[in-house]
Amino acid sequence: MRQIYLDNAATTKVDEEVLKAMLPYFTEKFGNPSSQHQIGQEAKNALEKSRKIIANAINAKTHEIIFTSGGTESNNLALKGLFFASYPEKNHIITTKIEHDCILNTCKWLQSMGAQITYLDVDKEGFVSLEDVKKAITQKTIVISIIHANNEIGTIQDLEAIGKICKEKNVLFHTDACQSFTKVPIDIKRQNLDLVSLNSHKIHGPKGVGALYIRDGIKITPLAHGGGHEKKIRSGTENVSGIVGFAKAVERADKKDLKKMRELRDKLIEGVLKIENVILNGARGDKRLCNSVNVSFMNIEGESIGGYLEQDGIFTSTGSACQSHSLEASHVLKSIRLTSLEANSSLRMTLSKYTTKEEIDYVLKVLPNIVKKLRMISPLIKV
Amino acid sequence: MRQIYLDNAATTKVDEEVLKAMLPYFTEKFGNPSSQHQIGQEAKNALEKSRKIIANAINAKTHEIIFTSGGTESNNLALKGLFFASYPEKNHIITTKIEHDCILNTCKWLQSMGAQITYLDVDKEGFVSLEDVKKAITQKTIVISIIHANNEIGTIQDLEAIGKICKEKNVLFHTDACQSFTKVPIDIKRQNLDLVSLNSHKIHGPKGVGALYIRDGIKITPLAHGGGHEKKIRSGTENVSGIVGFAKAVERADKKDLKKMRELRDKLIEGVLKIENVILNGARGDKRLCNSVNVSFMNIEGESIGGYLEQDGIFTSTGSACQSHSLEASHVLKSIRLTSLEANSSLRMTLSKYTTKEEIDYVLKVLPNIVKKLRMISPLIKV
Repeated sequence: MRQIYLDNAATTKVDEEVLKAMLPYFTEKFGNPSSQHQIGQEAKNALEKSRKIIANAINAKTHEIIFTSGGTESNNLALKGLFFASYPEKNHIITTKIEHDCILNTCKWLQSMGAQITYLDVDKEGFVSLEDVKKAITQKTIVISIIHANNEIGTIQDLEAIGKICKEKNVLFHTDACQSFTKVPIDIKRQNLDLVSLNSHKIHGPKGVGALYIRDGIKITPLAHGGGHEKKIRSGTENVSGIVGFAKAVERADKKDLKKMRELRDKLIEGVLKIENVILNGARGDKRLCNSVNVSFMNIEGESIGGYLEQDGIFTSTGSACQSHSLEASHVLKSIRLTSLEANSSLRMTLSKYTTKEEIDYVLKVLPNIVKKLRMISPLIKV
Repeated sequence: MRQIYLDNAATTKVDEEVLKAMLPYFTEKFGNPSSQHQIGQEAKNALEKSRKIIANAINAKTHEIIFTSGGTESNNLALKGLFFASYPEKNHIITTKIEHDCILNTCKWLQSMGAQITYLDVDKEGFVSLEDVKKAITQKTIVISIIHANNEIGTIQDLEAIGKICKEKNVLFHTDACQSFTKVPIDIKRQNLDLVSLNSHKIHGPKGVGALYIRDGIKITPLAHGGGHEKKIRSGTENVSGIVGFAKAVERADKKDLKKMRELRDKLIEGVLKIENVILNGARGDKRLCNSVNVSFMNIEGESIGGYLEQDGIFTSTGSACQSHSLEASHVLKSIRLTSLEANSSLRMTLSKYTTKEEIDYVLKVLPNIVKKLRMISPLIKV
């Protein structure tokens, strides 16, 4: 049966070239990078080569990249690490209401440890206000942590403008770039970033690998103490094959793919908006992630649409994959002022470099009929 | 050139069957286990099947296994998780002086957070005294954390006896079983274990995967907060291919291999002890890990021997791989009363199921000559 995978914000298929690059590091070059002998050093070389590739991709120095097990760990390490290294002198963290759960739940826990958290509002498209950012800063502020491109609605924040404020006010600047990495330019110098969370499995790399860029000289308390790997910031034998795959995925990222995704995204948005009573959630154009579509279909449940689409071999989601652990309406959609009803009628379709025009055509062929059918039986529509 | 890999306590070659089991989860069944659609559920099923295999291997219930990124994370999660869930009511942790750095450095950090740590001594073979364990327990004790089989000297502690004490005294019992898993029986019921750290890359599984067994009902604060994966104890998209590989490695563990390793280990020990002025570090027989040999060659440096062995294609280590980040003599060897000189003259050779009799014969052929040569030029030997 046909499979049209439109859930690439949840995870992506590993690129065949990525897998090929990883393979030797399982059974041939299987050494522990901490081993002093040749088999260990061979693994160490692969590790350092990968680190360089990832550092270059965001204009950082090679040794400023710390490998982790993924985006969640990177975000936890960034905020907890800065908090424990700064407390009690400083205890204030500024973030937004539309962060990924791993930032929000980390902040919630840090509150129980003595942190003060400011959660910034966003506007109807999901943008934070620069004025709000400025106003929130106090003498106690450690870091401003703002998601680069939102995982649910694809809104891209203006990191450069926020970075300028951080520099002026002398507070650290962290961004969760798990969704934007390789899709939106990240330049730690231009954007004045002090910490950046990166992730492999959203960019056709393997699961279980991520990185945290930490600017030289920033003190951070480890999340995982141990043998002193990764400049003593993240202990644990490095996942060499995964890291090699991550770096290969970064190398395989191609601007041509971004252009193609953007065109297909707009084709999909335009087509879906032709259906009656549909709203687009998030921004349009360049300020929206090139692969992200999130729409609300009034009076029907997003989950029902997803279910019917799946019968046609089309895989989508409602909200983030992680959100599936909870029954609550998405905090992101609530933050852009959607009613519960509107939030529950939302559907997220996220493209990849493998998405084709034919696939989008097919979605646009079947989706209107599904919506029509569901609305006919919806108890929310008064006949 | 011949390659004789005798550093299997540092890391192991991935079993070809393990890699084969992993492959579909990169490019075909690449879903996010949290996704509700079929591609996600296919990954979820693989995850749960793997969880069951690992649970069965230690006589636990399936849902008592939490996947992590490796042994270091599991050990950090166990101790920090229990501490933050128990503090300030209880704040005391009992451990030993011969734990892996990830336990010792976690304890050190927890001390700065308000923990009281008791580091138990060990005897000349590396065993803790049951009397000492009993005496150390106070009203404030949260957990006793004792390494099952030591990573440097291979000494296996009597978990059953320690578990009985923990049960009597009503304190939790954690063991770091990263080196012993699949090599020494672990039965959480018989040994009264409440938490067990497990690891994939020491047993011919991939790097970047581990697990923590947590007995039902034990409260633990997450190390990584986020989307609520792994019963809200360990957030982050699960490393599905890695977890599938980990489970396959557990399935591939075979008692026949243990017997073979034990025989080759004893052959190697006997052969090495025929060289003059050599001592075995750790216990003999069943109380020693089946793949572990650690010997001190008086008056010469372990590192020099390792270097010469490597010229012959034999890969060994001095102390643990992680220890290579530090120049200090091994804390484990110091704890079993070796002098600095003796500790620095130590060499660790750790076998795997792939080690052959021919390889051990070859090592025993070249090693005496290397020792002889090095002793001739040693400044420590007075002519």
